Amino acid sequence: MFENRLTVEWGDCDEAGIVFYPNYFYWLDCTFQRLLRSRGLSQRELTRRFGGVTPLVDVGATFRRPARYDDELAISAEITEWQERRFKLCYRVTRDGDLVAEAFEVRAWALIDADGRARGAPIPPELKDLLS
Amino acid sequence: MFENRLTVEWGDCDEAGIVFYPNYFYWLDCTFQRLLRSRGLSQRELTRRFGGVTPLVDVGATFRRPARYDDELAISAEITEWQERRFKLCYRVTRDGDLVAEAFEVRAWALIDADGRARGAPIPPELKDLLS
Amino acid sequence: MFENRLTVEWGDCDEAGIVFYPNYFYWLDCTFQRLLRSRGLSQRELTRRFGGVTPLVDVGATFRRPARYDDELAISAEITEWQERRFKLCYRVTRDGDLVAEAFEVRAWALIDADGRARGAPIPPELKDLLS
Amino acid sequence: MFENRLTVEWGDCDEAGIVFYPNYFYWLDCTFQRLLRSRGLSQRELTRRFGGVTPLVDVGATFRRPARYDDELAISAEITEWQERRFKLCYRVTRDGDLVAEAFEVRAWALIDADGRARGAPIPPELKDLLS
Repeated sequence: MFENRLTVEWGDCDEAGIVFYPNYFYWLDCTFQRLLRSRGLSQRELTRRFGGVTPLVDVGATFRRPARYDDELAISAEITEWQERRFKLCYRVTRDGDLVAEAFEVRAWALIDADGRARGAPIPPELKDLLS
Repeated sequence: MFENRLTVEWGDCDEAGIVFYPNYFYWLDCTFQRLLRSRGLSQRELTRRFGGVTPLVDVGATFRRPARYDDELAISAEITEWQERRFKLCYRVTRDGDLVAEAFEVRAWALIDADGRARGAPIPPELKDLLS
Repeated sequence: MFENRLTVEWGDCDEAGIVFYPNYFYWLDCTFQRLLRSRGLSQRELTRRFGGVTPLVDVGATFRRPARYDDELAISAEITEWQERRFKLCYRVTRDGDLVAEAFEVRAWALIDADGRARGAPIPPELKDLLS
Repeated sequence: MFENRLTVEWGDCDEAGIVFYPNYFYWLDCTFQRLLRSRGLSQRELTRRFGGVTPLVDVGATFRRPARYDDELAISAEITEWQERRFKLCYRVTRDGDLVAEAFEVRAWALIDADGRARGAPIPPELKDLLS
């Protein structure tokens, strides 16, 4: 399991004083990027070493409590499912141990062809090993 | 059914040249706000007339095709389900009739108490009539 | 002179109920992109036809009045200065004729070399003609 | 002098692979918020203790080098000027000691009246002491 920590900034909240919800997805994506880095990878490294990218296929979130300016949040990430061409990440956002949100992302593996277009492909075993 | 239209801007895309996915949720929220306006309402009007807000409870999206800079997107919104304290909005994002993404939001009705805290409550019939 | 219009969305405002200021710069950039489109250009077209990009060198803004959720803003843009390798855009943001903000961007012209790096270069006369 | 550190995330960059410039201003604002925290303050604390807010009056930035995904940036902040009703913050954004951008913000002091409107006022000496 990987954990990312952040403080809710002034600009992350809306007029009601709670986090404007699209920002949670920015944080999920950041958490995935940092998980990649923790394994010696990165979005660029995926392209350089494996010739591919990880486009989002499905995403969802359930919100339990509002988070506010200055709150310190922890986001845990775990890859919970591997398919031939896809994998699923589960996230939990907590504040002092209290659940703020649960979320998931399903990402596909896609190779970039000569024209710059992405095409779904089986996940390279070496990549799966690095992320497992 | 309500429809919102927008053009994908330079700053909405990531280095891979496709929309950075949290932006879709910003657009869903904007579409909901414009749907409110189309019924003579707004986030502020909800508070003024009904004393409440519509916090997000659940959200999800499935992505079918990437969208890119300069693409013109149409987002349709429809309230597809009413419960006593919640309602569900379904969205379809299309480009020239091709499906880019499907999404939904479940929003609760919550009254703002004297301390500024939100507390779940039954949806006022008049509000339901305005939005149906 | 080019004019862009937009409505301040819920997610554009902070807890104080006014526009979170970095959003103004997103709007300036969008206005520049739409100015390009109004001349049959775009960021992609600049690269395809002229092999270059327009990196930002200097930017500034002065804020006169706060703007709020649901406000309808007009943003005018004008190229007010041409140098050999740079040009300056001046923007005015108004609401019902009242000045909300004044801003400027200085953009350079840069050619993309074979390694994908940008290098400053004289502005092509044809590009200047299209934008003047 | 106060220093804030951050890593450029995937979603912060545009299709050209460099930071989309409005994000720098989000980072400046975050740096100001963290400077407040380092003095035992915050945007909320300013309102609670001093009844006011710090609206932005003027802002500017000069960009020296592009920053890219995965770059680690340091942002230093210093209050360089005090006027009766305004103060100026100067920021330097660096990567491994190389200057990426210089920027400034001029912020006013404004009291919130009973109607929730902000009105310019002299900076309380105690606040100035805390921030100096």
